[in-house]
Amino acid sequence: MEDCIFCKIVKGDIPCSKVYEDENVLSFLDISPANKGHTLVIPKKHYEKFNEMPEDEASTLMSAANKVSKAVEKAIEPEGYSILINNGKAAGQEVGHVHLHIMPKYEKDDFKLLWTHSNYEEGEMGKVLEKIKTFL
Amino acid sequence: MEDCIFCKIVKGDIPCSKVYEDENVLSFLDISPANKGHTLVIPKKHYEKFNEMPEDEASTLMSAANKVSKAVEKAIEPEGYSILINNGKAAGQEVGHVHLHIMPKYEKDDFKLLWTHSNYEEGEMGKVLEKIKTFL
Repeated sequence: MEDCIFCKIVKGDIPCSKVYEDENVLSFLDISPANKGHTLVIPKKHYEKFNEMPEDEASTLMSAANKVSKAVEKAIEPEGYSILINNGKAAGQEVGHVHLHIMPKYEKDDFKLLWTHSNYEEGEMGKVLEKIKTFL
Repeated sequence: MEDCIFCKIVKGDIPCSKVYEDENVLSFLDISPANKGHTLVIPKKHYEKFNEMPEDEASTLMSAANKVSKAVEKAIEPEGYSILINNGKAAGQEVGHVHLHIMPKYEKDDFKLLWTHSNYEEGEMGKVLEKIKTFL
């Protein structure tokens, strides 16, 4: 996509610190990392959101993410790490091209990738379940 | 694993609101959701962290997550959603069995899955890159 910064990185028009590349996937260091070793893994083909990707391409993305996460874990030895794909502005997605974060984490970090918990009302969980299952 | 709550769910010793199941993967509603439709996808086999999974099993997990995320997106129609795997206590992992969250998100949420940004010092990024690449 013409105006997409990640498509430009894929094309080589914008440089990156390339960690890994194969036919379908590119992985590079995040230039504004949460912690050192924060790495992105993206599909070369432009998709805005994860659910827009065909299943086989999502699977390929995760193979690469698994490979890279092993290397990041060995090289950086963080206390923990998160795998994160934010989809949509409401989820904090800033670049409209699917990108998977491999993010080293430490107890001392001043941010947490956590959420507040809510509850289902009586009978509501079953309805939500059935509704999701109609699309599977 | 004997004391693992997710292994007990896989074995059927603890009930769940099952969204999807195949030979290798189980998906069910989170009982304490960030938002309605918050769904977990787990490998049936016990691994504590994502980097401990063989690449083909990580890939299978993501195929299922992709399938389920499409159904959650259609059923719930959230403003956005996140895919998240926290690994290790420092990353907020609470159950020591790999689990992938599909988490519907809204602008009005009182939590963000965001982080603070840091910088590499001069020349540091290249060193981190080379170190990661030695493990690939």
